[in-house]
Amino acid sequence: MSLTDLFDPDSIAVIGASKTPGKLGNDAMANAKEFDGPVYPVNPSGEGSVYGYEFVDSVATTDADLALCCVPAPATPDVIEDCGEAGVGGAVVFAGGFAESGAQGEQLQERIRETAAEYDIAILGPNTAGHIIPHRSVFSSFVPGFDEIETGDVAVVAQSGGVGVTATFQLDREGYGTAGMYGLGNRVNTDFGDVIPAVDDDPETGAMALHIEGTEEFDAAVQAIDEASTPVVALKSGNRAEEFVQSHTGAPVQSGERYEQALTDAGAVTADSLTELLDASRALATCPEASGPNVGLVTAQAGPGIMMADYLKDRNVNFPELSAETRERLDDLLLGFTYDQNPIDTGRPMPEFGEVVDAVGRDENVDIVLVYEIFEHSLGYPVEELEGLTNEVDKPVVFTVAGPSEALAEDRQRMEDSGIATFDTPERGAYAASVLAETSR
Amino acid sequence: MSLTDLFDPDSIAVIGASKTPGKLGNDAMANAKEFDGPVYPVNPSGEGSVYGYEFVDSVATTDADLALCCVPAPATPDVIEDCGEAGVGGAVVFAGGFAESGAQGEQLQERIRETAAEYDIAILGPNTAGHIIPHRSVFSSFVPGFDEIETGDVAVVAQSGGVGVTATFQLDREGYGTAGMYGLGNRVNTDFGDVIPAVDDDPETGAMALHIEGTEEFDAAVQAIDEASTPVVALKSGNRAEEFVQSHTGAPVQSGERYEQALTDAGAVTADSLTELLDASRALATCPEASGPNVGLVTAQAGPGIMMADYLKDRNVNFPELSAETRERLDDLLLGFTYDQNPIDTGRPMPEFGEVVDAVGRDENVDIVLVYEIFEHSLGYPVEELEGLTNEVDKPVVFTVAGPSEALAEDRQRMEDSGIATFDTPERGAYAASVLAETSR
Repeated sequence: MSLTDLFDPDSIAVIGASKTPGKLGNDAMANAKEFDGPVYPVNPSGEGSVYGYEFVDSVATTDADLALCCVPAPATPDVIEDCGEAGVGGAVVFAGGFAESGAQGEQLQERIRETAAEYDIAILGPNTAGHIIPHRSVFSSFVPGFDEIETGDVAVVAQSGGVGVTATFQLDREGYGTAGMYGLGNRVNTDFGDVIPAVDDDPETGAMALHIEGTEEFDAAVQAIDEASTPVVALKSGNRAEEFVQSHTGAPVQSGERYEQALTDAGAVTADSLTELLDASRALATCPEASGPNVGLVTAQAGPGIMMADYLKDRNVNFPELSAETRERLDDLLLGFTYDQNPIDTGRPMPEFGEVVDAVGRDENVDIVLVYEIFEHSLGYPVEELEGLTNEVDKPVVFTVAGPSEALAEDRQRMEDSGIATFDTPERGAYAASVLAETSR
Repeated sequence: MSLTDLFDPDSIAVIGASKTPGKLGNDAMANAKEFDGPVYPVNPSGEGSVYGYEFVDSVATTDADLALCCVPAPATPDVIEDCGEAGVGGAVVFAGGFAESGAQGEQLQERIRETAAEYDIAILGPNTAGHIIPHRSVFSSFVPGFDEIETGDVAVVAQSGGVGVTATFQLDREGYGTAGMYGLGNRVNTDFGDVIPAVDDDPETGAMALHIEGTEEFDAAVQAIDEASTPVVALKSGNRAEEFVQSHTGAPVQSGERYEQALTDAGAVTADSLTELLDASRALATCPEASGPNVGLVTAQAGPGIMMADYLKDRNVNFPELSAETRERLDDLLLGFTYDQNPIDTGRPMPEFGEVVDAVGRDENVDIVLVYEIFEHSLGYPVEELEGLTNEVDKPVVFTVAGPSEALAEDRQRMEDSGIATFDTPERGAYAASVLAETSR
């Protein structure tokens, strides 16, 4: 079974497409219309066009290789059969009412599994929000607003569509896009073990954020993580809310400990919250790999710097001594006024702040550079010095920003563009540095 | 010693005021100019006016009761003496170079302590970013942009000015203002034990967020927290970065355990990060006190709901059974399709979602209502139903929002205005509910 038709289609059919706003088949068309290739709204009772695309009666009259199935659960087996006859190789089934909802739903799910096997169709779902891959203009989802999500370098692979959607909008709210959001849902024949290698093969994906509730295909999932060359961060959910998981997701109840150990052994970073999941992924996607776990912390304000040092020491991250050469340069820059040992504190923003970061970043004892500075309009952020540093030194730089939002946008984007990961609270910056230390060679 | 002149002045002198952009005395004037009362830029070499205010030669020629001292450390003792002679009762000393920087600085700090005692002047600092109290139009700080901070209901009392500034801008970036930011700095004669009662007396302050590095006046601080009628949340910093604290803040190194126990005994919530500090404070300021620890969780998406249930169960928060009456109402609303036990999952947003929340909110077994919903344009958020609920039922409601940022702004503000605390990630919403459970009667 290939996932090419599913994730990299040449043409898309929207089965059950509708002109009526608010209907699933309309919401799916609103996203699918962004596709840079043929899109076919399929509905035998459809008249005229929707979003500029003429309705067609049947998927059989199209050359679609990806079908978005916007019909209720009971109608789905026949639609999958139609897709198979029409040569469709990938299908997204949005509807709920399958294995997560009792015996009748289980039978329906078994029927589409059999049909998909017969015709070799890769099915995402059922019971999923679908997937989006902005850099391929693929927006196979009914979620309103997904057509505006931009390309980024973190891909989200979520067992729960709701978590995938939440994660995608969270990246979007913070000014990032996504390399892809893949909502697995009930995983009738497309599970973590299938999707992870496909995402790993996508050169636009710099890191993978996995949300896992539980899968029968545990070993295949772990093996795929182990074999992935893209950094993987994983959040195992449902460890305490067992009854909720069992009654509502169609996922098996599996212990968090089993996953924690297996994920760690396979080289994944494990996260404890959605924000950690995304932040760890962003840090790993944006920064080069650290060659060691030693953090050089430069702060323009003592108080937040102390909070970050606390956080990192709690996680056994090391602040190495700086070389004699670096300390000499720092003494010249800081005139002995401030704390020139690691962590380095300049007391407040100053014109020389970028040079201080540069000095620490070039120190051979420092593997990861972590910076904290409250923005001041008269100084701005030392973006040019940072660009100079990252052009010459292959080390992760994490910049923790603070200040009014309108001040942060532009400089922050420039830093991200030059491979510097930026975060907006002391604990998020410190967490990112701890992940880079954990994953260092 | 009264803090009235310091925190509720009738007129303000800015000593060392300057016309030169980027100078401390100019930045301080840029904020002080917002004051709804006389402002005197004091500088014997000043000519003409700054921000529309005429320079005066000496504080002696003014009726100022609050002085912002924008002069370097060595000049400060004389300035404090001048202030005393002029009848000033409160002074903010921004400069560093006092007790945090060695023996000479300690001597300077001792001199201003003696002068302040002689003239009965309450001094904020030295080595502080100052304070702002937007609802009194008091912006006694050099931090650029502080004049645009709006009024909110959380007051931040921070030992580190840098942390206070970071916290203030973080509230601002998320659409909130502050009831006050008080940066204590070196606490020459105004410490937590003095500031907490003053903030407690401010009716605009709904909750107090404390950042503590360590104080010699430990007992007075704990007593003030114990006696405050305003909810208090505290973050003790510097527990691991001892050397950094000692070398750079003028704060004594004190164990986190000692604080943790004393703060909890005094009735404070203890937070582990800046975001937790602000989120706990926002929840306590916005919501009524919970009459018990039982959470009713309503989610429109299973996956994020499971993450929140995990989080709360890890913190031993209880999800009570719903009453027969509530379950009957839910069965009518949900037609048996979804998970009608607590946590309640509607599967996706639906027109009846507000009624579902209403049913759970009115259940006598539920003390705290926690909601999760991804925004959909065609439905919006059920703001009217929520307003109806909070008007009639005196229980905390926490609404966790997700979706594109432009969609969230308006509904979110309306919810906040009707006493519903809103948070934008699953873990932040769940954390807020856990704090409300912890502080319930």
